Amino acid sequence: MKNIYCSIILIFLTLCLYAEDGHQLWLRNSNPKPVNVVCSKTSTSLTIAKQELQNSWMGETGASVSLVIKADKAIRGDGFRIGKNAIQANTESGILYGVYELLRRQQTGEAIQEEICNPSYDRRILNHWDNLDGSIERGYAGQSIFWRKGSDVFTVTEADKKLWQEYARANASIGINGSVLNNVNASQLMLTSDYLQRVKAIADVLRPYGIKTYLSVRFSSPAQIGGLKTSDPLNPEVAQWWKDKAKEIYNLIPDFGGFLVKANSEGQPGPQDFGRTHADGANMLADALNPFGGIVMWRAFVYSASDEDRAKQAYLEFMPFDGQFRDNVIIQVKNGPVDFQPREPFSPLFGAMKKTTVMPELQITQEYLGHSIHLAFLAPMWEEFLQSDTYQNGAGSTVARCTDGSIFPQKYSAIAGVANIGLDANWCGHHFAQANWYAFGRLAWNSSIRSEQIADEWIKLTFSRTSENRDELALDWNLNFLSPVKQMMLESREAIVDFMMPLGLHHIFSANGHYGPGPWWAPKGMRKDWTPPYYHQADTLGIGFDRTSSGSNGVGQYQEPLRSTLSNVSTCPEAYLLWFHHLPWDYKMKSGRTLWDELCVHYDGGVQQVRRFQKVWDQAERFVDRDRFVDVQEKLRDQSLNALEWKDGCMLYFQKFSRKPFPYNLERPMYNMDYLIEKDTKRVGEYHH
Amino acid sequence: MKNIYCSIILIFLTLCLYAEDGHQLWLRNSNPKPVNVVCSKTSTSLTIAKQELQNSWMGETGASVSLVIKADKAIRGDGFRIGKNAIQANTESGILYGVYELLRRQQTGEAIQEEICNPSYDRRILNHWDNLDGSIERGYAGQSIFWRKGSDVFTVTEADKKLWQEYARANASIGINGSVLNNVNASQLMLTSDYLQRVKAIADVLRPYGIKTYLSVRFSSPAQIGGLKTSDPLNPEVAQWWKDKAKEIYNLIPDFGGFLVKANSEGQPGPQDFGRTHADGANMLADALNPFGGIVMWRAFVYSASDEDRAKQAYLEFMPFDGQFRDNVIIQVKNGPVDFQPREPFSPLFGAMKKTTVMPELQITQEYLGHSIHLAFLAPMWEEFLQSDTYQNGAGSTVARCTDGSIFPQKYSAIAGVANIGLDANWCGHHFAQANWYAFGRLAWNSSIRSEQIADEWIKLTFSRTSENRDELALDWNLNFLSPVKQMMLESREAIVDFMMPLGLHHIFSANGHYGPGPWWAPKGMRKDWTPPYYHQADTLGIGFDRTSSGSNGVGQYQEPLRSTLSNVSTCPEAYLLWFHHLPWDYKMKSGRTLWDELCVHYDGGVQQVRRFQKVWDQAERFVDRDRFVDVQEKLRDQSLNALEWKDGCMLYFQKFSRKPFPYNLERPMYNMDYLIEKDTKRVGEYHH
Repeated sequence: MKNIYCSIILIFLTLCLYAEDGHQLWLRNSNPKPVNVVCSKTSTSLTIAKQELQNSWMGETGASVSLVIKADKAIRGDGFRIGKNAIQANTESGILYGVYELLRRQQTGEAIQEEICNPSYDRRILNHWDNLDGSIERGYAGQSIFWRKGSDVFTVTEADKKLWQEYARANASIGINGSVLNNVNASQLMLTSDYLQRVKAIADVLRPYGIKTYLSVRFSSPAQIGGLKTSDPLNPEVAQWWKDKAKEIYNLIPDFGGFLVKANSEGQPGPQDFGRTHADGANMLADALNPFGGIVMWRAFVYSASDEDRAKQAYLEFMPFDGQFRDNVIIQVKNGPVDFQPREPFSPLFGAMKKTTVMPELQITQEYLGHSIHLAFLAPMWEEFLQSDTYQNGAGSTVARCTDGSIFPQKYSAIAGVANIGLDANWCGHHFAQANWYAFGRLAWNSSIRSEQIADEWIKLTFSRTSENRDELALDWNLNFLSPVKQMMLESREAIVDFMMPLGLHHIFSANGHYGPGPWWAPKGMRKDWTPPYYHQADTLGIGFDRTSSGSNGVGQYQEPLRSTLSNVSTCPEAYLLWFHHLPWDYKMKSGRTLWDELCVHYDGGVQQVRRFQKVWDQAERFVDRDRFVDVQEKLRDQSLNALEWKDGCMLYFQKFSRKPFPYNLERPMYNMDYLIEKDTKRVGEYHH
Repeated sequence: MKNIYCSIILIFLTLCLYAEDGHQLWLRNSNPKPVNVVCSKTSTSLTIAKQELQNSWMGETGASVSLVIKADKAIRGDGFRIGKNAIQANTESGILYGVYELLRRQQTGEAIQEEICNPSYDRRILNHWDNLDGSIERGYAGQSIFWRKGSDVFTVTEADKKLWQEYARANASIGINGSVLNNVNASQLMLTSDYLQRVKAIADVLRPYGIKTYLSVRFSSPAQIGGLKTSDPLNPEVAQWWKDKAKEIYNLIPDFGGFLVKANSEGQPGPQDFGRTHADGANMLADALNPFGGIVMWRAFVYSASDEDRAKQAYLEFMPFDGQFRDNVIIQVKNGPVDFQPREPFSPLFGAMKKTTVMPELQITQEYLGHSIHLAFLAPMWEEFLQSDTYQNGAGSTVARCTDGSIFPQKYSAIAGVANIGLDANWCGHHFAQANWYAFGRLAWNSSIRSEQIADEWIKLTFSRTSENRDELALDWNLNFLSPVKQMMLESREAIVDFMMPLGLHHIFSANGHYGPGPWWAPKGMRKDWTPPYYHQADTLGIGFDRTSSGSNGVGQYQEPLRSTLSNVSTCPEAYLLWFHHLPWDYKMKSGRTLWDELCVHYDGGVQQVRRFQKVWDQAERFVDRDRFVDVQEKLRDQSLNALEWKDGCMLYFQKFSRKPFPYNLERPMYNMDYLIEKDTKRVGEYHH
């Protein structure tokens, strides 16, 4: 009889345990207190704002909150003025953002005093690399939330709309106001009417949350779907076709944002196919969109199989056209000059193009940082990038200030992040990858916010603290969960740099999916700049890519005094050392170690660091629901093993050149290199994006 | 021009570097000094003895050494009297062994004073589990040196003879005087005339080195190749057939040693197939061999799929027949009651059968100790076994004394080791596995020799010290090579116990080849005693096999006071704890830790230990030739990874039952259990031997 009672209690407890799949992201309703919301206007957006307050109010019980839309020059764009019980803005979006800010501060315990919050960038955009068949390029969280295979895609279901709404709400809560719905490697079908109907349906759901819809377009669309003989941008019929297409789109979506274009890059069509320039192509599209207020985001990620250092090519390609672009063209530049590596110096185009609007492109999805397996908090990487000083307008010309309108006159300011979102229940594959979506939004809104604050906010919002109704428990949580987990997040990206490619090494990934190590990968006949040896340049004398004046002179693209700082091996930051210099194995580092030993110490340190993360997380077990705890725990194990593969693979490979022993105090390799090479070779994968 | 000189020098140096493949084993000719050997008799064996002295003499230059064969009661069997410049023995073999002893002492620097060296066991036998098709059961060093596929096997080549001679010399140098040439899972074809011709050829090569040849026979041979209707041992035609067969063999090989029989075990035919007993079967064969001085080694490795604890079955099966066997029958008993596990208590049959000759069977090949991948020096395991006190004739009745004739009257004494020898250039797969062949020979000759001395000798003999012509270098070698490498060898078996199955756990291997972990392995319908859960008995309450009187009462087979020591959980050695007891997870260990924590500490400790071995070996690099250094280095990496799989697999699996966290100071798992199970399941392998 006692056993039966036990069983019943057990079943009851099991049912009570909420299956936590992470779908709620950082938006977790606690038990709200009553609140009275006063707002003289009505609209869908304002209704959302009210509901959010009522569903999550944690301020004074029964307080009265006023939402006021009123023109105020101190408030820019969709910024807002916030107070304990009041939000004022120029726009409905501004009200909405103010509401989310107020609720966030209540939940995180941040001080609320009257202040104005203006966005750093006007356009804060997610780029979805979603293909129309539902797959996602470099997506590690399942299929697309927008597209799917088969004609079924043309039916918009209630489930679609519910998901899009959840997506829009999450974006609005962190200030994201634009979504490019499809892959930059664009299909011409994107602009056909069936697909545009679906775009309209998506836009209708996103609009009340202040989100504009954008599309990636294929430059050869006029010939491919328009029945024209050419897509030459200077051909009047082509220009007219784009004008007509723009009109068609704006009829469906009056607030449509504009086009994103990857042209003459990695096989994509572009104006150069017709002997025209990037400016010719971008301006033609800009003219088509201009009457409706649309913009063109033209990607600078262009390089060819030439002898020229790949890291220099975007600069060489675009600088000649500075000043020749329409004011509704924005050149979208990846943060670094190569390709979203765990660490790169900023691209020299930032600040260099003084008469052209330039926007940063960040990658939220972890193409080169462990996919959805590694725990990698990217805010420190983006902070490092945005705060880099270009010196283009004297000291203090940070990338952020060079792109947000502070320094150069520009009609628009914008920033883009390649989304990490898919159909996975937790949206991002890894529970901690949600923090990168969150961080991108927060930094796009306020580029000077610190990574530490972002992590602090995100942890508080994401991991329920319902049990801490007593101060003692709150203290325990802060000390034994918040603090170590935050520290882990803040160190996580550097750990990856250490075990993958420390000291400025870059692009030494396996050809297979950019996950494992592949410093050895160089099949015969392969384009040199698609192989790791091109980047690490290891030989018996040393390692590193010489980008000083004795080498490719990539440093020449940077402004003084930075150019000299980077050129001089004794002043070049060691984090970028092998990016700019080829150095002998016994080069003496600041630590007193040789370069070889220092390299080994970094590789080993990265592995040890991940093992420490595992301990941090395991010790956090009692604070986390079972589902998310186990998910993260298992992924950390995978990461730990992958870190070991990186360390062993790279150290053993480079040892073939250095011919030096690993420092004897370090743990020895557990893998043999041949095994790792064989494991890598067995897979067939495409190499680049 | 300078470059050409450099190239020539380089080529010259390369040619000079001896490609060290380990084929020379512990027999490495240094630069011998002149010696004058005096011997009044001549024979092939004595010629070998002389040549060995002349090829390797490191004593006084120009010394005169006398070899004297003379009957001497103080010298037993093929023992010898040794002096600085004299060897005396009863037999030619004795002279040969004395020569090898003298040369070994010269090379290792051991003192040489006049003394008599008598063997512990008369018969010191290798069992080769070689199949007639050239494959070797549980062989990890390539194909058989005796057999090969196809009719080609019936041609004896010069290469065959050269290899057999090298094999014989190696055996003689460590006192091994018998070889069973084929697998105990024997083919009936072994006794056909074509194969017997090849046995004769082998025996002819082995004979001058004092090695007798033996064969494993299939009990059903009379019916299978003799044209009889039965193989019933009490059938006179069957008995006659065996007598005729014995005669045929002895005509070819006058000094033939005898038969080894695996009967009624794991599907092999035997007397029980005809309603007869092991005694009936063994005695019938013994009678056939007796006229020629041959012996029968009858294996006790017999167990059935009954409800009875497998560890008890050999004892139950054989004890009733004690005293019923002929005096030329030896019962061959595996060291432990289950099956060559990394650690087992000794089999209770040792010392229990007081009226029957019993011989130990050790396993040199590393079936359960990492194949030829792990560095596992087995002498400590055998020393532990041979020195175990059975108490069967009072305190001090060690296994060694119970089997070598010290305590019980017996016509013969013998010990067998399952060989780890194959066609690999280095004979044993792993360079350090040679040490186990060496150790078996040394212990079979002198069961009281310590593991430490064996390791010391083997290292000195195996790793050339040609460069140490100066004292300073010798000191360096002793301090930085001999000492740490010896320590590593001595700790290596315990490290394996720790990361595989500490605290008395046993037989929790993967079904696939007894290499990786498989504590979970239990397919539906599988014989229970072939699955690991049968052995570890883990459940939510605890872990371990209860062999006390409340369980299978396996302890009842041991003699008092050992029985009580093992029965009582507080006196049972912790190394055997879970072999004899099922204990709760929070049982308090002597360390003060819970059983669960202690288990984790052992698993982790084993992994850390292998990592230390890697450091030891890497630091030994300058003392070792490149080839052997790299071979061992790479195998240690594989071992390190396998140790991790063991630790993670077992800890994660047992955690499902214990429901306790791993101690937080320990490194966390890097593997997920599902991955390891899947990896294991993907392979198809046979399970037992």
